[in-house]
Amino acid sequence: MTALASRIYSGHAPLAALGPGERALAYGDGLFTTARVHAGRVVWREAHLRRLQEGAARLGFAAPDAGFLDAAIDELLAAAPADAVLKLILGRGAGGRGYAPDPGAEPTLVLALFPPPPPPPPALALRWCALRLAAQPALAGIKHLNRLEQVLARAEWSAPGIHEGLLRDAAGDVICATAANVFARIDGRWRTPPVNACGVAGIARAWVRENADVEIAPLSPAALEAADAVFLCNAVRGILPVGSLAGRRWTAHPALLDLRRTLARAEPAFA
Amino acid sequence: MTALASRIYSGHAPLAALGPGERALAYGDGLFTTARVHAGRVVWREAHLRRLQEGAARLGFAAPDAGFLDAAIDELLAAAPADAVLKLILGRGAGGRGYAPDPGAEPTLVLALFPPPPPPPPALALRWCALRLAAQPALAGIKHLNRLEQVLARAEWSAPGIHEGLLRDAAGDVICATAANVFARIDGRWRTPPVNACGVAGIARAWVRENADVEIAPLSPAALEAADAVFLCNAVRGILPVGSLAGRRWTAHPALLDLRRTLARAEPAFA
Repeated sequence: MTALASRIYSGHAPLAALGPGERALAYGDGLFTTARVHAGRVVWREAHLRRLQEGAARLGFAAPDAGFLDAAIDELLAAAPADAVLKLILGRGAGGRGYAPDPGAEPTLVLALFPPPPPPPPALALRWCALRLAAQPALAGIKHLNRLEQVLARAEWSAPGIHEGLLRDAAGDVICATAANVFARIDGRWRTPPVNACGVAGIARAWVRENADVEIAPLSPAALEAADAVFLCNAVRGILPVGSLAGRRWTAHPALLDLRRTLARAEPAFA
Repeated sequence: MTALASRIYSGHAPLAALGPGERALAYGDGLFTTARVHAGRVVWREAHLRRLQEGAARLGFAAPDAGFLDAAIDELLAAAPADAVLKLILGRGAGGRGYAPDPGAEPTLVLALFPPPPPPPPALALRWCALRLAAQPALAGIKHLNRLEQVLARAEWSAPGIHEGLLRDAAGDVICATAANVFARIDGRWRTPPVNACGVAGIARAWVRENADVEIAPLSPAALEAADAVFLCNAVRGILPVGSLAGRRWTAHPALLDLRRTLARAEPAFA
């Protein structure tokens, strides 16, 4: 997909093009976040920017200040359609000697706007991915640029009738989908897996935690398949009910309908 | 460090600049290799290009054909100093919808030349890194662009007297240094760890395997510290004797001196 508009900055200065020494390119040394733009407004904007700052701190570099990020986003949005997807890539900058960064490097910021996603299907059809997520506590939770696991997992299927794939860790526990967090309705509560060894702490996942009764606990494939309801969520598409996984089928669950209504009221992008 | 010269191609066509949809940037979806250029010649050229092709096959995309790669390298070298470091980055290309690649995308090739490394110290001083490498068999062995583990490990120290850090897997076995493979002299043979769960199958490691009596076997920190000699190797700097690690000291070992002489005869870049 081609970007509708994009900007690149090194520190606060516009940059004409990314060079071969860009560490985001060379090592995936950076972070990204993907936000929904609706009616000219970035949904969950503060949470996205806060997560970028937190991710940069985890990787050991300073993100641009929030005022600059805000201004750069506003400048891009001013020239763009009111409904879109905004992607931000924040790299550690250029240069350094091999893996050791240049301590004086300015971070690199790439902003790009893409068309909004098509309307989601009423219920998602899922599959199990064969690839297992590796446990790396030093990188777990943050949305860094090392995403080959997700690329390989997504390449496992091409059938258009399958919307997403679920990923497990080496022990076999469910962690997430390739591009979404997963929640299961178990004993009257929502359960989602911890993301302290692998997986991403999604922005939509954080919204659900604040707006529903959620338990963070390991989730086995058997527990997921026995759940009363299952949904995926991410910051671009909101909450997506799961209708099938392998042989299992789910129909609409009142608690899931309620949660989607609450989200639609709070964020009309997802109505 | 700034590149002395660089070129970018999309398929066989020159590309003016990398865009925000470039998958090597967005996901680290690609490979790289770093070669020594000496007296105008790329050391271990065929092995580097073969590894790029093999890595692309592992990731599920087709690398440019060898004839094109050779021509692109020759064109870049023609305008450059005779002694340098050549870095090739091969990405899956631009676009696609999220993690699912665009099946029609042409791979992106970035070639860049950098100054040669300074002469190595007579013996390296090593440290143990705290970061443990995650086990991911789907990515192990290939030199892909997801290198945040190496970036974080290299950021653990800044003392100029420490030249490299050794990385262990989650079980505690030694795997490699941040930017080199490791060999230990044990019971009259060289031992180097397997790289089928983490680590990179280095080009210099392959040369050593072909030119010495090498056993591929797990290597505990205790076995490494008890070894009669230890060296690191990579394709840019050749074979580098290790002089110290934590409290342990090593002096020059005849088998290591022999191996370095053999390498220097075969590849004068490392004399």
